[in-house]
Amino acid sequence: MARYPSLGLVTPENIGLLVDLYELTMADSYLRHGLNQKATFDLFIRAPVERRNFLVSAGLETVLAYLEQIRFTDEAIAYLRSLKLFSEEFLHYLRTFRFTGEVWAIPEGEIFFPLEPLVEVTAPRIEAQIVETFLLNTLNFQVMIASKAARVVLAAQGRGVVDFSPRRDHGADAAMKAARASYIAGCLGTSNVLAGMEFGIPVYGTMAHSYVMSFSDELSAFRAFARDFPHNSILLIDTYDTLQGARHALTVAREMAEQGLQLRGVRIDSGDLVVQSKAVRQIFVEAGFPHIRIFLSGDLNEYKIADLLARGAEADAFGVGTEMGTSADAPSMGGVYKLVEDEMGYRVKLSAGKATLPGRKQVWRILRDDRFFQDVIALRDEPPPAGETYPLLAKVMENGKVVGPGEPLSAMRKRFEERLAMLPEELRTIDAASPYPVLQSPRLAALTEQMYRVVASS
Amino acid sequence: MARYPSLGLVTPENIGLLVDLYELTMADSYLRHGLNQKATFDLFIRAPVERRNFLVSAGLETVLAYLEQIRFTDEAIAYLRSLKLFSEEFLHYLRTFRFTGEVWAIPEGEIFFPLEPLVEVTAPRIEAQIVETFLLNTLNFQVMIASKAARVVLAAQGRGVVDFSPRRDHGADAAMKAARASYIAGCLGTSNVLAGMEFGIPVYGTMAHSYVMSFSDELSAFRAFARDFPHNSILLIDTYDTLQGARHALTVAREMAEQGLQLRGVRIDSGDLVVQSKAVRQIFVEAGFPHIRIFLSGDLNEYKIADLLARGAEADAFGVGTEMGTSADAPSMGGVYKLVEDEMGYRVKLSAGKATLPGRKQVWRILRDDRFFQDVIALRDEPPPAGETYPLLAKVMENGKVVGPGEPLSAMRKRFEERLAMLPEELRTIDAASPYPVLQSPRLAALTEQMYRVVASS
Repeated sequence: MARYPSLGLVTPENIGLLVDLYELTMADSYLRHGLNQKATFDLFIRAPVERRNFLVSAGLETVLAYLEQIRFTDEAIAYLRSLKLFSEEFLHYLRTFRFTGEVWAIPEGEIFFPLEPLVEVTAPRIEAQIVETFLLNTLNFQVMIASKAARVVLAAQGRGVVDFSPRRDHGADAAMKAARASYIAGCLGTSNVLAGMEFGIPVYGTMAHSYVMSFSDELSAFRAFARDFPHNSILLIDTYDTLQGARHALTVAREMAEQGLQLRGVRIDSGDLVVQSKAVRQIFVEAGFPHIRIFLSGDLNEYKIADLLARGAEADAFGVGTEMGTSADAPSMGGVYKLVEDEMGYRVKLSAGKATLPGRKQVWRILRDDRFFQDVIALRDEPPPAGETYPLLAKVMENGKVVGPGEPLSAMRKRFEERLAMLPEELRTIDAASPYPVLQSPRLAALTEQMYRVVASS
Repeated sequence: MARYPSLGLVTPENIGLLVDLYELTMADSYLRHGLNQKATFDLFIRAPVERRNFLVSAGLETVLAYLEQIRFTDEAIAYLRSLKLFSEEFLHYLRTFRFTGEVWAIPEGEIFFPLEPLVEVTAPRIEAQIVETFLLNTLNFQVMIASKAARVVLAAQGRGVVDFSPRRDHGADAAMKAARASYIAGCLGTSNVLAGMEFGIPVYGTMAHSYVMSFSDELSAFRAFARDFPHNSILLIDTYDTLQGARHALTVAREMAEQGLQLRGVRIDSGDLVVQSKAVRQIFVEAGFPHIRIFLSGDLNEYKIADLLARGAEADAFGVGTEMGTSADAPSMGGVYKLVEDEMGYRVKLSAGKATLPGRKQVWRILRDDRFFQDVIALRDEPPPAGETYPLLAKVMENGKVVGPGEPLSAMRKRFEERLAMLPEELRTIDAASPYPVLQSPRLAALTEQMYRVVASS
């Protein structure tokens, strides 16, 4: 137990214990009963998510790093021993624990749909079981954020979107992964400087009301900031009165112009953003400064952005925080991790409303006229369906080691952009659409039906 | 930038950069303009939170650890330099950056209300500014979770509540702090083993459906687990058929009884929990095993628990995950951090709907008949109001060092329990109640009004 006061952070050293207790008790029991043959688990989003026409894969890199690095330290094992639950045999086993399995996954930035296996883990049962909690924690969150951010980016119709969410994200790691996932889904960057350093994401910022208040008057504050950051000044103009703020910004823009500099932009964070942004633009245009960019912020989401633009708001970019960083209208993702195959063969689960599809799988995406036409979930060893197709799942880890060189975030972001262009028009909207067709291959459907008959009658 | 694949975790070493970019640009500007006199910022929840009759203080320890530990490493400074934004003077300043300020705060586990300063920071302006992002990130989240968990605990009417949220929490840190905050608010413990080790929180677990499926049949699985964990077996009975599962559990309970052991309990995670739990209890009672505890889980929240109990569900404890760990009905907390005093005197902010109260403050809680009667927000140096009162804010940090020995979580948890008993009956419910009265002292009210007149006319 850490000393007071404790940051209580998860570190690479202690990450093995970021696990639901039952994963470890089950693992101990598997060890005692010799139940450690290879098993395959599917991680998938169980049900359609309200207001999400599509989902965006994100978080795989975090998962792979975890699988490569998971260990149980002496401190962790001493703590587990203190619980008086575990066998010494199991604690001994944990000392040299490594993840040695094989992982297939849908790459980050790909568009996918409920029921499609996002990640498939095949490993000795104990290893596959122990990693469940972390995989769900990571993928549920990053998929949720990427899928939400994609909607915000869609609503912005080509204008920039910047992640302003760190202060409302759920803790320190959420601030990192919200920046990461929203960048994959098309955001320009983030205000989170550490995410900038760790992931190479562009960082953005303006100024706070307290900055303006720290000077004797608004114009002095604007002048000071423009002098300090001549190429990067975005002045916050709504601390006192937005139109007066715009005129102060204009004064600064004129002074900068005399030195051959351009004021980059202003930000409006409160009030009626349509009325204010139009009036501010008019002030700038009439004064011959049409290039001054207008950033809008203040509890924005995809619906508000769509509404602002529909009502003629003048905006070059949006800062979006709380609603994107918490996926406020759907703040959890129902990803689950289910046994689908083991040494006894195919497996299914029968609990009411919680059915699973058996076996190791591939998802085939059928294209028509360069657009997604339908997806088919098939058994891994089935041939692809007829027509132009591509497989969603690729092998990303073998014997506990990452396969291939790994992808930079920029490649994932580009993948998402390309896939978005291939998505049927009716799904490429923030409005609710009919579900995209995800079918089962005839062989998988027949197998599933047969398995349910067997399980139900056993 | 980290190598692929990266866990992207926040560590004590890099935590200084977990900051919105604008905090650093503003800080650089303050340094250049000699604006580094002491300033005071209030952190408070701006508006009433829907469906929250009261808020629970949580997260202060995390904040204090951060304030004691925040540094900027060489790597961080090199990254900042690469952005080509900052002055060398500022980067030099960051090399020896320490937080040296004074902090007043409402202790963890205390009940508080919107507008009341939860944390007040007085420090050289740059220090106070740079820590804003982390303080908001931490306190918004932990207050949100504690306030939500308090409702779940209330709904459970004395039955146990266990945090089962790690797989749906927003990333790794959220899983840690959700466990911490919900424990303060009365949960029995958590499934998160690392939170158990780091914070000394009791850990709980049962088994997963995949465990049951890993054996040839349900009874074999139950027998194996009971043999492995004779004192801690909670059998999950809904993998195939809940009533059949209960009979298998009963078989195991009988076999254990022959060896002088007691089966601890069963868990039901799906189906109609009222019907199932009643039927299961009846099976146990009729067989002479009334002591077998029944745990219910499956997308529970305070409303569902209240409804289950109202409809006569048989439950000894509840496992609550997603809805508590994400505060699903209100997944963000509107905490803000506002300048209230500096070398120029009292400060207020005027933006529409975003007003602040000036000055360093104290909150006095007036008691009547040992119950909360009303709170009065006053200036720090005002005498307490008449009657039986206690102050909510205490000095917790001086010159950047924690004051006093620090509190164990158990003390915070006890404080919450005591305060909950002092809360007016009509607020001690999950139903919406009239707001608790939070007044301003006559002096603070007069000062605020006067300041607004001055600012508005300036």
